[in-house]
Amino acid sequence: MNTFGNNFAITTFGESHGAAIGVVVDGCPSGIELSEDDINLDLARRAPSGSVSSTTRREADLAQIVSGVYNGRTTGTPITILIQNTDVRSTDYDKFAKIFRPGHADFTYHHKYGNRDHRGGGRASGRETAARVAAGAVAKKYLQSISKIDIFGYVTLAGDKKATSFDRDFIDSNPFRTADREMAADLEGYLAGIRAEGNSVGGVVELCIDGTPIGLGEPVFDKLDARLAYAFMGIPAVKGVEIGDGFAVAGLRGSENNDQITSTGFLSNHAGGVLGGISTGQRIFARIAVKPTPSIAIPQRSIDLDGNELDITVGGRHDVFIAPRIVPVVEAMAYIVLADFWRIYA
Amino acid sequence: MNTFGNNFAITTFGESHGAAIGVVVDGCPSGIELSEDDINLDLARRAPSGSVSSTTRREADLAQIVSGVYNGRTTGTPITILIQNTDVRSTDYDKFAKIFRPGHADFTYHHKYGNRDHRGGGRASGRETAARVAAGAVAKKYLQSISKIDIFGYVTLAGDKKATSFDRDFIDSNPFRTADREMAADLEGYLAGIRAEGNSVGGVVELCIDGTPIGLGEPVFDKLDARLAYAFMGIPAVKGVEIGDGFAVAGLRGSENNDQITSTGFLSNHAGGVLGGISTGQRIFARIAVKPTPSIAIPQRSIDLDGNELDITVGGRHDVFIAPRIVPVVEAMAYIVLADFWRIYA
Amino acid sequence: MNTFGNNFAITTFGESHGAAIGVVVDGCPSGIELSEDDINLDLARRAPSGSVSSTTRREADLAQIVSGVYNGRTTGTPITILIQNTDVRSTDYDKFAKIFRPGHADFTYHHKYGNRDHRGGGRASGRETAARVAAGAVAKKYLQSISKIDIFGYVTLAGDKKATSFDRDFIDSNPFRTADREMAADLEGYLAGIRAEGNSVGGVVELCIDGTPIGLGEPVFDKLDARLAYAFMGIPAVKGVEIGDGFAVAGLRGSENNDQITSTGFLSNHAGGVLGGISTGQRIFARIAVKPTPSIAIPQRSIDLDGNELDITVGGRHDVFIAPRIVPVVEAMAYIVLADFWRIYA
Amino acid sequence: MNTFGNNFAITTFGESHGAAIGVVVDGCPSGIELSEDDINLDLARRAPSGSVSSTTRREADLAQIVSGVYNGRTTGTPITILIQNTDVRSTDYDKFAKIFRPGHADFTYHHKYGNRDHRGGGRASGRETAARVAAGAVAKKYLQSISKIDIFGYVTLAGDKKATSFDRDFIDSNPFRTADREMAADLEGYLAGIRAEGNSVGGVVELCIDGTPIGLGEPVFDKLDARLAYAFMGIPAVKGVEIGDGFAVAGLRGSENNDQITSTGFLSNHAGGVLGGISTGQRIFARIAVKPTPSIAIPQRSIDLDGNELDITVGGRHDVFIAPRIVPVVEAMAYIVLADFWRIYA
Repeated sequence: MNTFGNNFAITTFGESHGAAIGVVVDGCPSGIELSEDDINLDLARRAPSGSVSSTTRREADLAQIVSGVYNGRTTGTPITILIQNTDVRSTDYDKFAKIFRPGHADFTYHHKYGNRDHRGGGRASGRETAARVAAGAVAKKYLQSISKIDIFGYVTLAGDKKATSFDRDFIDSNPFRTADREMAADLEGYLAGIRAEGNSVGGVVELCIDGTPIGLGEPVFDKLDARLAYAFMGIPAVKGVEIGDGFAVAGLRGSENNDQITSTGFLSNHAGGVLGGISTGQRIFARIAVKPTPSIAIPQRSIDLDGNELDITVGGRHDVFIAPRIVPVVEAMAYIVLADFWRIYA
Repeated sequence: MNTFGNNFAITTFGESHGAAIGVVVDGCPSGIELSEDDINLDLARRAPSGSVSSTTRREADLAQIVSGVYNGRTTGTPITILIQNTDVRSTDYDKFAKIFRPGHADFTYHHKYGNRDHRGGGRASGRETAARVAAGAVAKKYLQSISKIDIFGYVTLAGDKKATSFDRDFIDSNPFRTADREMAADLEGYLAGIRAEGNSVGGVVELCIDGTPIGLGEPVFDKLDARLAYAFMGIPAVKGVEIGDGFAVAGLRGSENNDQITSTGFLSNHAGGVLGGISTGQRIFARIAVKPTPSIAIPQRSIDLDGNELDITVGGRHDVFIAPRIVPVVEAMAYIVLADFWRIYA
Repeated sequence: MNTFGNNFAITTFGESHGAAIGVVVDGCPSGIELSEDDINLDLARRAPSGSVSSTTRREADLAQIVSGVYNGRTTGTPITILIQNTDVRSTDYDKFAKIFRPGHADFTYHHKYGNRDHRGGGRASGRETAARVAAGAVAKKYLQSISKIDIFGYVTLAGDKKATSFDRDFIDSNPFRTADREMAADLEGYLAGIRAEGNSVGGVVELCIDGTPIGLGEPVFDKLDARLAYAFMGIPAVKGVEIGDGFAVAGLRGSENNDQITSTGFLSNHAGGVLGGISTGQRIFARIAVKPTPSIAIPQRSIDLDGNELDITVGGRHDVFIAPRIVPVVEAMAYIVLADFWRIYA
Repeated sequence: MNTFGNNFAITTFGESHGAAIGVVVDGCPSGIELSEDDINLDLARRAPSGSVSSTTRREADLAQIVSGVYNGRTTGTPITILIQNTDVRSTDYDKFAKIFRPGHADFTYHHKYGNRDHRGGGRASGRETAARVAAGAVAKKYLQSISKIDIFGYVTLAGDKKATSFDRDFIDSNPFRTADREMAADLEGYLAGIRAEGNSVGGVVELCIDGTPIGLGEPVFDKLDARLAYAFMGIPAVKGVEIGDGFAVAGLRGSENNDQITSTGFLSNHAGGVLGGISTGQRIFARIAVKPTPSIAIPQRSIDLDGNELDITVGGRHDVFIAPRIVPVVEAMAYIVLADFWRIYA
């Protein structure tokens, strides 16, 4: 379904080339300051960067608060946020109306739903995540009003380029949202080359959550890490999620992986801030694998609705490297997961 | 909470050293053949193997069907399965009543709940997963009655030992549940060494799901892969989940990662059988990272409830390598996730 | 929360004098014909009738489908319907910003939420039910595409006026939505009198559901009748719900109340088409008690936010007899309840 | 489904003549004192009274706490309560295996589920409500630990006998659970007469909830009164629910029905303690219509599974007047509804 969360619940709606996309945020307490600017700030972080890595589609992405806010504060009723679809060139997609683009949801949506809005990927478009970012902005405002929560993500890998240093302040000042200046410099040329060959490339996003108390998370199925994995794996293009040291722990001994405890706290944090599905109060961190954008200008084999084979080239205005734009989406989903737990914690 | 699923929903309950653990399975259609033997078969696969890798606790784990089955078939009402806790030596745990065992949920449960059943890990014990396996057996019977579903998992990595060959028939005939005979032979000595040093080691489980139709999965948050990640990350000791090629796709180009389509089907399956959160009809596969069991006989630093520092040695009857016993749990959760989707698909 | 339903789920949002109200309908199958006209038809039935009984507020109530429909048919994705608030005179409500109107939700919303949109009742306004009617129109289209479902409601009581005859065709041709021509004639003068004294009056709505199969309803908590009661009692102004013969059965013997069965069907239908919470295939019927609109022009005692006593007169543009406008809301909720069950039935 | 509630959620299971019935209570905070005696006290109130009105089946109904309690206090994990089925005479029901008893769920269960446990009504038996009473006892203990909550129900009508006086202390000291001594005296003979004719009779239960704060209830669908109606209408044999003055308000003017407000509180309570779906802090009260037990010794027409007509006489050990035994069930469901809201209120 299109609702996520139990007590702080979001419902997103809308197709890439429909009239608008949007979200209903239910369960946000009343009295929280909230403006369209708060939301637009985060939407801008998800918007195409204008750099070599991203689509040239210009999504102004202006949030319109339709309900749930009065005199600048939430009222405890559902907060609905609309984002009009503006720079829509649906005719670009006419040629794909009867073809399955490889790596896209065209094939499965067609078989599951039959009547499918193919324009711009329809509901399966990454554009739907703008609604999540808008909802995340609400969750953030709520949590910031009751805690010192601080969530930030950044790109640590793009194809064969890897970050080796970390400068948090640098993250939002480069279009690739890496925390490594050298990597950013590298990526300019690297991604230009990939764009030149009509290709795309995958990447990895890391996420840090600071400022949580001990005790968030509800065993046994709604563990904090299980809910985060649920939230992250539901983001388009995500193919893997690690909590704490993730797959690396498979190669470790218990004596190496256990986080020993002293009177002043844990001596390490291999667990990533979660034990038994409940937050330890340490930093929570995760890694998220992002696949290369499936829209590429290199000819690929596919079939049409009648099963006829053909070669397909997906030109258009596509992202060469989508991971930087997924960073704010991952952050948003993390805020939403935490807000949901916090509603029954506090 | 302790319920997973919407239309095929399971609710587990019980502590490791309480009277019993168990599960209520709600939403299973009527008329499905189901016996306690069906369930015991799977419970036996999760039980300690008696090999070098596993605990010497002997969990007979006999399922008792308390409700929902009449004349050998399900009635459409909730199926309750009880598993009595038999070989319980709670006094083994007396010394841990006031100490937080590193890597365990003791610390977070204590702070979240205050009144905590510390015996054998209480609710946070891996023993709770027996209830999931019992529920998975019901899901399996249901799905086998309407499809050719086939789910199997196996161990591909243990510390620094890696599988390099695959023989499905071998999986259930070795205590380490690897599909690689050579690896199994290696592990005997390797794990004996780890046991000798009082240590434990992590591993990786792979899972394959064959026989699904096109169309399982509900965008946008309840994507098939998102629900699988949710289910798997909620299993104790799991720290990472990959769907399809997982983290490997981060290093790929779109032209390498896209699964091209011909009139006879997909040319590859990097996606792992899921596009846009919906099953493609191909094999669904996943990798799951399992941390080393935190219970080790090597002294570690910790604190007691009053914050006093001390050294702790967790002897007892523990698993050196838990991944093989997690295989049936992963399979069970996969059956449950699929059954939940299938209820509104068919 | 503001979501109702599990597999066919609606989420309403919006305040009476905000920018718009609306609804997200999730879980509607794809391929169902749906137009804004389909929805407007039902919205018009909820709109003020222009008769002596209803408010002079003119709610054009035009539905705008924002998502979920492509080429005139549903796509299986969330259907969002917006209804702009047009004839809004919020200044009418300035005087009530700091006073609790008796019989309204002002008092409880203020204490629960603090920051409250008082204009026109805000979220607690009957206007919110327009969103339910819009969602009900979608549910109706869905169910009509797979069944012979037929749901209709009508007014049987207004104050001390009672219906004594039944002509279904008459229901939609009189502003009081009674099925009794004589009663309709009576009500003209009766309600004019109540309007003249600045008062309002309560009523009873009856609902019939024809065309359901045997088997809708999910024991034990989600019984068909329990879900209907849940849905109806959640409509503003509703204070009582009866299924079948309702309170009358309290005075009966088992031999009178049991519906005996023959080879051609039941001999009676005291149960109202539901046994054990599951539809019998007979007509399902219910009665719903509607309280008099609390907005009256007769002075009443109340207090302001500071606890000061005062006399309050709620003039404005109010309904003298709201039951006729609740009829389409009751019908809509019935369609939604049935659609929700039908999704897992078929 | 068989789960009720969101944050304080109960899942009941079990058939009348199966091994046991029971309930899992999820979401109860930790640290609440809870013993089997606490539960047995309430179970005893639901048990057959031994009077002229009730079945001679002797249900000892002893609660066994299987999980979720340690050292006499809840641990925050699921509380599972088992009640063994003891005085079971399933052979009494052999003759009904292939016949639909009028007024029972036999007909609908058969058509919906096919494989049906007919013994003693199976899952549709009133016996299932013992599990609700057990869960209600837990909810009561939780709420009593944080509030002055006080919930009590009583019988006000039995066939044509009506209560005219009220003495709370008398309620639990008479088998008919009326608060009117004269009515109790009357009922002895009245019900003996009904039993003599092999018949049964319906009744009305009233419920009062004292000690709630302002603010319980979640608009717009999960209004406090809507959730109560949902809970009560889901109890077997219930056919009507009124909140506050219920159907009586249909005959009133707004000026009569509005509860005016002064600086010391409301001047009346027609609303029944709920405005806009949110508790006002006043007494919440409701009336519940209970149908006559369908099991009667008077021959009735019915059919068998093959559609053959026949006459059926349902002798056995049945209740002549079930309303007194429904009182504790109504109370239990009220506690559960309130506990569910309280979890996100406090």
